[in-house]
Amino acid sequence: MKRTGFLLLAVVTLAGVAGVVVHVAHAAGQSDGDASPIYGVKIPAGYRDWQLISVNQLHFAGKGEQLRAQLGNDIAIKAFKAGTLPFPDGAIIAAIHWTRVPSEDNNKVLDVPFPGTQSFVIGSRVNVQFMVKDSKKYAATAGWGFADFTDGKPGDKALHETCFPCHVPAKDRDYVFARYER
Amino acid sequence: MKRTGFLLLAVVTLAGVAGVVVHVAHAAGQSDGDASPIYGVKIPAGYRDWQLISVNQLHFAGKGEQLRAQLGNDIAIKAFKAGTLPFPDGAIIAAIHWTRVPSEDNNKVLDVPFPGTQSFVIGSRVNVQFMVKDSKKYAATAGWGFADFTDGKPGDKALHETCFPCHVPAKDRDYVFARYER
Repeated sequence: MKRTGFLLLAVVTLAGVAGVVVHVAHAAGQSDGDASPIYGVKIPAGYRDWQLISVNQLHFAGKGEQLRAQLGNDIAIKAFKAGTLPFPDGAIIAAIHWTRVPSEDNNKVLDVPFPGTQSFVIGSRVNVQFMVKDSKKYAATAGWGFADFTDGKPGDKALHETCFPCHVPAKDRDYVFARYER
Repeated sequence: MKRTGFLLLAVVTLAGVAGVVVHVAHAAGQSDGDASPIYGVKIPAGYRDWQLISVNQLHFAGKGEQLRAQLGNDIAIKAFKAGTLPFPDGAIIAAIHWTRVPSEDNNKVLDVPFPGTQSFVIGSRVNVQFMVKDSKKYAATAGWGFADFTDGKPGDKALHETCFPCHVPAKDRDYVFARYER
């Protein structure tokens, strides 16, 4: 038993070291593609596999109905869970926006036990936004760099000029609107 | 360079081995607490950290408005991404259901550039459901075991008798309604 325990500890310890190596490589590695204007943020590799922060829904005047999810890299999730403010350097938050469409399939099933129930699911991807914390690089915008991509292409300079002012009302939460939901 | 490459490979290989060990421990380890009737499914440890499959919204007749997210363990996510059907044994899907509430804070911010925009966010947790694939143990229900927990407590037998029949319309997708969204 002792030997097994030691082996497991050794393996887990090595996994921890390896985890740090792999993590650093991931944090440094960014996908190919264009960077956002002003901030120079590229789409972070593997962001779709990050953990879920929260979901929300938007009746977006003039732009239709949206379902949205916010994901965070390990540094961001750790900070959310611990309530750490401001977010530490290296934290990245991704916000994926999709169109919302009615699900006829779901409605057929749900309407039998729950008449009148309406299910809405994801239609297609609209865009994805990122907030990257780097207190030195982005000192002029409270440490956050922003990016908004549609089909892998960043929006223009005018669009990105709206990012930071829009986040100012969330100043007391380090400019982050999303709250981690258990 | 060669030496660094070897070291990295060794570390990554060990991380892989450790990953398997940790993964098996996680898959086997379940939280304390009661198991669902009929199926004997307990709340899987660490499920809130699983990757996101999709999100949806429900106008739940007589039960209010809900925002929902489906998460999958590594086996489930791998199968979703590869389009593997039926899902392999060990796959677990979690469906978290929250109440949906208007966000006055978000609306104040969004209404300026986009008048009439309405933001809805999560209010509180309603329940969480699990589907666990074990083709032998749950042979009578197409290989799936079900569970529905509210505040950590499983629903009753009558509730759990509704799980499988409700999923039959999704038979061609191995009884899973959720679709993985990029």
